[in-house]
Amino acid sequence: MTTAPERAQAPAWSAELHAQAQQFYAHQMQLLDLGEAERWAGTFTEDATFAVPTLPEPVRGRAGLVAATRRTAAGLAAAGQRHRHFIGMLDVRPRPDGAVDVRSYAIVYASQIGGESQVHRVCVCEDVLVRQDGELRVSARTVTRDDLA
Amino acid sequence: MTTAPERAQAPAWSAELHAQAQQFYAHQMQLLDLGEAERWAGTFTEDATFAVPTLPEPVRGRAGLVAATRRTAAGLAAAGQRHRHFIGMLDVRPRPDGAVDVRSYAIVYASQIGGESQVHRVCVCEDVLVRQDGELRVSARTVTRDDLA
Amino acid sequence: MTTAPERAQAPAWSAELHAQAQQFYAHQMQLLDLGEAERWAGTFTEDATFAVPTLPEPVRGRAGLVAATRRTAAGLAAAGQRHRHFIGMLDVRPRPDGAVDVRSYAIVYASQIGGESQVHRVCVCEDVLVRQDGELRVSARTVTRDDLA
Repeated sequence: MTTAPERAQAPAWSAELHAQAQQFYAHQMQLLDLGEAERWAGTFTEDATFAVPTLPEPVRGRAGLVAATRRTAAGLAAAGQRHRHFIGMLDVRPRPDGAVDVRSYAIVYASQIGGESQVHRVCVCEDVLVRQDGELRVSARTVTRDDLA
Repeated sequence: MTTAPERAQAPAWSAELHAQAQQFYAHQMQLLDLGEAERWAGTFTEDATFAVPTLPEPVRGRAGLVAATRRTAAGLAAAGQRHRHFIGMLDVRPRPDGAVDVRSYAIVYASQIGGESQVHRVCVCEDVLVRQDGELRVSARTVTRDDLA
Repeated sequence: MTTAPERAQAPAWSAELHAQAQQFYAHQMQLLDLGEAERWAGTFTEDATFAVPTLPEPVRGRAGLVAATRRTAAGLAAAGQRHRHFIGMLDVRPRPDGAVDVRSYAIVYASQIGGESQVHRVCVCEDVLVRQDGELRVSARTVTRDDLA
């Protein structure tokens, strides 16, 4: 007799997972835009990697995420600007191992306080989400920008 | 023996609530952009408050919402423009009392008929939603604009 | 004795349907932006119609969709540009016959590689979705552009 319990338990796409992912991104990116650097970093796993095209190598771990977020927040405040990260178009793909691949679009809007609002960046965000204590967290994020080769 | 029936009945976040909120905002803001002033106002409670930074005090009640919406629609028509309100990034938080806090991002796009389309406003929308006759309605809305101090 | 089996089976709005529609649009439009012309066309029914304001009559059938998508992809590559179609604000309305009407907003962002990103088009997308082999597919799409009369 053969059994395939792992396959039987492999998670499938569900409406519940899709809604959870949407709630996760809304909350996560609102924390970023609020400058809540430590709570933002807490939505990643301890050893998460974060790769963006403007850095020579990925940020690794929460301390690096906090530092990068604080630098960005300070720069925006000094320039009198606000950024909003608008994530959507979530293509949610559960993996056999229980992790979840999510490929989404991330539009960054920039507003000059006392001035204009405009599109700042158009990005594609490829995440691996995992569950820890029942909560979704990012274990690996790779961001690409449409304006870069 | 101790019991905590209120706590037991306190609503929790659910995928169903998140999807209902998304459907609510899509329908509500499409009504606004269609200029359906009375149906738009009907998605608020009778005594709803609506606070925006460009008014000295909140609009109160549906009649005020209808009047404000008609003024805006007339102004856009006269200018040969169309606006679209794109709501997303819903951070949905049920309250113990059954109401629902939703903090979302609202991007307003403006198009000149025969001309260009662009970002008009980048806003944060903080709502209190309640249920009446099974339907979600806004009882209080506070909108802030990223381009204003 | 009277029975109303059709009415009893008429589909209602559900959170599951709304999430399925969101997953469908995310996947479908990512295929378009990736230039995956045949997989994109496969998300429409064989005899689907696709009406856009810049064509004198609707495209009919998958071969036409593939050809139109390849032309657009080649034009963008030649111009050193990338487009992203960001769909949201889904107003999902099941029909009594089992099809689903979805009216959504579609923002098209354009990025010049090595240059700027901006809003390219603001569109309203009116679809009729049907199920084939359990999968949602578009049987009719009508797109309007806010910048055109």
